[in-house]
Amino acid sequence: MSDYLYERVAAGIQTQIEQGTYAPGERLPGVRKLRRQYGVSVATAVAACELLEQREILEARPRSGFYVRGRARHATAPPEVSAEETPGPSLVSGQERVLELVQAHHDPDLMSLGAAVPDAGFLPGAALDRSFARVRRRARRRIAGYDFPPGSSELRVQVARRMADAGCSTGPDELVVTSGCQEALVLSLRAVANPGEVVAIESPTFYGILQAIESLGMRALEIATDPADGMIPDALAHALRTWPIRACVMMPSFGNPLGHLAPPARKAALVALLREHGVPLIEDDVYGELAFNSVRPWAAKAYDEDGDVLYCSSFSKTLGAGLRVGWVAPGRYRDRVMYLKYAGSQASPTVTTLAVADYLEQGGYERHLRRARRRYERQVRRFVDAIGRHFPEGTRVTRPRGGFVIWVQLPRSTDAVILQQRARAVGISIAAGPIFSSSGRYRDCLRLNCAHPWTDTVADAVARLGTIARELHREGIS
Amino acid sequence: MSDYLYERVAAGIQTQIEQGTYAPGERLPGVRKLRRQYGVSVATAVAACELLEQREILEARPRSGFYVRGRARHATAPPEVSAEETPGPSLVSGQERVLELVQAHHDPDLMSLGAAVPDAGFLPGAALDRSFARVRRRARRRIAGYDFPPGSSELRVQVARRMADAGCSTGPDELVVTSGCQEALVLSLRAVANPGEVVAIESPTFYGILQAIESLGMRALEIATDPADGMIPDALAHALRTWPIRACVMMPSFGNPLGHLAPPARKAALVALLREHGVPLIEDDVYGELAFNSVRPWAAKAYDEDGDVLYCSSFSKTLGAGLRVGWVAPGRYRDRVMYLKYAGSQASPTVTTLAVADYLEQGGYERHLRRARRRYERQVRRFVDAIGRHFPEGTRVTRPRGGFVIWVQLPRSTDAVILQQRARAVGISIAAGPIFSSSGRYRDCLRLNCAHPWTDTVADAVARLGTIARELHREGIS
Repeated sequence: MSDYLYERVAAGIQTQIEQGTYAPGERLPGVRKLRRQYGVSVATAVAACELLEQREILEARPRSGFYVRGRARHATAPPEVSAEETPGPSLVSGQERVLELVQAHHDPDLMSLGAAVPDAGFLPGAALDRSFARVRRRARRRIAGYDFPPGSSELRVQVARRMADAGCSTGPDELVVTSGCQEALVLSLRAVANPGEVVAIESPTFYGILQAIESLGMRALEIATDPADGMIPDALAHALRTWPIRACVMMPSFGNPLGHLAPPARKAALVALLREHGVPLIEDDVYGELAFNSVRPWAAKAYDEDGDVLYCSSFSKTLGAGLRVGWVAPGRYRDRVMYLKYAGSQASPTVTTLAVADYLEQGGYERHLRRARRRYERQVRRFVDAIGRHFPEGTRVTRPRGGFVIWVQLPRSTDAVILQQRARAVGISIAAGPIFSSSGRYRDCLRLNCAHPWTDTVADAVARLGTIARELHREGIS
Repeated sequence: MSDYLYERVAAGIQTQIEQGTYAPGERLPGVRKLRRQYGVSVATAVAACELLEQREILEARPRSGFYVRGRARHATAPPEVSAEETPGPSLVSGQERVLELVQAHHDPDLMSLGAAVPDAGFLPGAALDRSFARVRRRARRRIAGYDFPPGSSELRVQVARRMADAGCSTGPDELVVTSGCQEALVLSLRAVANPGEVVAIESPTFYGILQAIESLGMRALEIATDPADGMIPDALAHALRTWPIRACVMMPSFGNPLGHLAPPARKAALVALLREHGVPLIEDDVYGELAFNSVRPWAAKAYDEDGDVLYCSSFSKTLGAGLRVGWVAPGRYRDRVMYLKYAGSQASPTVTTLAVADYLEQGGYERHLRRARRRYERQVRRFVDAIGRHFPEGTRVTRPRGGFVIWVQLPRSTDAVILQQRARAVGISIAAGPIFSSSGRYRDCLRLNCAHPWTDTVADAVARLGTIARELHREGIS
């Protein structure tokens, strides 16, 4: 709950709007009425409305008051849980083509809405510059040498402090520094499973997880996942009884691509269920710090009693993907993970690790995060609104409460893979659904990265996507 | 051949000393005689002697002339090729303990002669600082984002230019940037072989190669290797006929731990032999730039006709191990290596890659290398001399012509593993032989890292090692 009265009033009004008490286009009661309803001063009521204006939930009309912003030509419902029967475990294939998708991110002629990379403008570049300069000055001899696993204690101390916010009492000695979250995931998978063995995953899931599984020759098993609340415990329980599952990978907080958030009780239930079956959980929490309402959700690792959860994260989404500074809290697999890190690349670069540790020590990270959360919230709202305006009727979209990706489900018989091809032809890159599945599902879905400044170019690109999608939809039903 | 007359004269004198024309402790002919012998000016003869004094081959005694430096209490011969029969392929085990060895490098109370890490004083720290500052200033937006495989074209262009010096016409598009040479080796192994399959290696070999093989569940097959000239073609040919070898890994230029240099004809023969059997060669050339005589040897890759050689290297030994900037020229396995890099860690840090590219563009690297080569040559000589003075009679030692590691073979029945334990107890870390073997050989051998400034502390440490070795030798024969 927020510390400021006006934020609490704003939250109340926002709830009323979300519940339909005030519909898009309607005028909100005047500030005097709001004042009485919430028992606050006029100034507080005005501040609350201005906050909602800033968040683009309300718009002020001169001499008339505050109106609920016109959202969409039609309401966009959330995507449905895939009703298809879960197929059995399968070797993952075809993930090589994702490299092409992400390489498109470097193409200056493409508007890249595909790769989930935050725009540099959303990152603390200048402060990081100062940290790099500082560590190069202070620790030149040290940064010339290897930062052997587990990696610099300075970074591990800073990370351990942050882990406490996620409900985890993980000490510095329980952490291993990695080259981003992807390496943490791969090391964790290698520590707990062998080629040919079965790994349970969310459906849809982050393609990086599929690539890790594919490149290690393991088999993936998709578990039904609610687009709002995450992996469904009953579906996981059924799978655990049916298949020889050796590990489970999930992103329970603002997961990619759904942006879902598993409620605390569900996280606890999933952890308990896996422990009961002796299956380690690999948790990817790379978006966990980006809760829009500023309340950082507890990680699944918070419910881990015996060290069965291998928690993976990084600073890629908050400080910069190009830093490749991540970590893993591998629970009782620490020694194995540490050795695999060493055998795989000896160490991570010393300078980037120490620079991030220095940046965190300086103390500006919380302020930066607060700002980033507000910006990502606004971005996601803008993208969702624009989809409502431009995409064909029947389009469904997730409404994440953190992170910066959204998952769009096109109306029946509209093919997102063709949408991707046609969009590419006009200079827009998106990520069509099948790369988020080990069984080729989600041809009607796509993921969009909302972490771009909302320029005319971006607005035009989303409108353009909507036009193509409407064309495809018409072709499909004709 | 050197461009300077005095260097040529110095080389001539050095050869005479090495051939025994002048023995340690003997006085060299006066400069007037040298002048006549070599047909040069007195100034040139003096300059030649001063160069040899600087290299610590001669010493000047006031009012008496130049003397050949007293080398050793007894001559140290090179180690012999292991006469034992090559055992069959075996799963590698026990390499986890090497992590302990290298972590000792961070212990301020230990004199670390174990890990092969160059002292920061031998690296161009200030120039790299400037490159880091420059790229952070110029490319802040870009360095925030992923440098997806194959990695920055700036670095690949610079590396391609250097590859030409190694006899390889490898273009920028044929290179993939990696996190140091270790990641390059692991990606290469994964690209060409599967768990359980057999990999041929030099004997002894760099433990990082054994760790890569162990962590991937492959089997290693040791091939007899000459401590001066590298892997023996007949031994490899015999193994290729006998075992189902899927890949071969070697360091033919100043390899670690022997410091050996395979002559050009041998490199060509090894490449041809492997091609004949359809076996890809993974070449680790991380020391290739560090030839003492300034003539950079051609890589084995230079003799590759069909893209069967996967060439791996890094800037760890010349610019800094902590940078983790390396590369691989994977020949016809490029797409596979690129995908495995992406699936394993998405990318290498953008800032370190671009900073190294900037440093190389600035043009001071060749000058730095010339200086580094001279320093490493002197270091290696000092270590070899000190071993001759302090270690028990019958000790053998390699005399590498590049790099900065030496391989010491103790007299029969002297156990280097016990030496390692006793040395550790008095605050000195060394690398005993068995970690360089997949079959536990070389208990009588150790590797020393000579890339330390030659301080009293280092000199004392080597003397102390010698004392312990003599004690062990006496115990062994009593």
